[in-house]
Amino acid sequence: MTNPFTCGLDAVLFVMGGKWKPLIVYHLAQQTLRYGELRRAVGKVSEKVLAQQLRDLVADGIVARRDFKQIPPHVEYSLTPFGISLSRALTQLCEWGTQHSDELAAIAERSASGNKDEAVTSAQ
Amino acid sequence: MTNPFTCGLDAVLFVMGGKWKPLIVYHLAQQTLRYGELRRAVGKVSEKVLAQQLRDLVADGIVARRDFKQIPPHVEYSLTPFGISLSRALTQLCEWGTQHSDELAAIAERSASGNKDEAVTSAQ
Repeated sequence: MTNPFTCGLDAVLFVMGGKWKPLIVYHLAQQTLRYGELRRAVGKVSEKVLAQQLRDLVADGIVARRDFKQIPPHVEYSLTPFGISLSRALTQLCEWGTQHSDELAAIAERSASGNKDEAVTSAQ
Repeated sequence: MTNPFTCGLDAVLFVMGGKWKPLIVYHLAQQTLRYGELRRAVGKVSEKVLAQQLRDLVADGIVARRDFKQIPPHVEYSLTPFGISLSRALTQLCEWGTQHSDELAAIAERSASGNKDEAVTSAQ
């Protein structure tokens, strides 16, 4: 089998390229969660998009889905060993985001106000 | 200013959430590139999407754009100091992808063949 990826990061993005996937993995790395709990943890994501990204992560062997076959439904999501390994590789990026969260919040604020030119000047 | 992010990773994803942004940053971390060189390095991305993601990265202070004001146009892209710092935080994720590139290539192959169920079973 030939390797289809240009580099390690390209390979990671194949399974983590969805907008919410890194956050889903991050939250499941803290604890097993039911669907509703995960949705509240992830935040602004829509029901439909979260469900699709979870299906992808389950299909790719990163997230395990456990259905308790109860009514009302009780379904729990957790990381597989492969997913746990991936979540550890996100640590450095999380820490960078925490360290630079003030700068990133300022970027988000400028972006929301539409003043992109100012953002360029002050960041360089 | 209140911080709008739920965690460090959420903050990172504000500037890196675009599908190709991590790869753009990764390639510019290796060297300054002209637009066409960057497009070839990144791969399957469309002209329009690459241009938009580059504009975002410039506006967010991660990528610097240098226009040599020549005809034919000569424009170079490189990382700002903030972008260099971010690219270092991607190292661990790159390394994980390189270490697991065979597993990730197998996932990509199963995904391409549409056999998602098999992927779940064999990965768990």
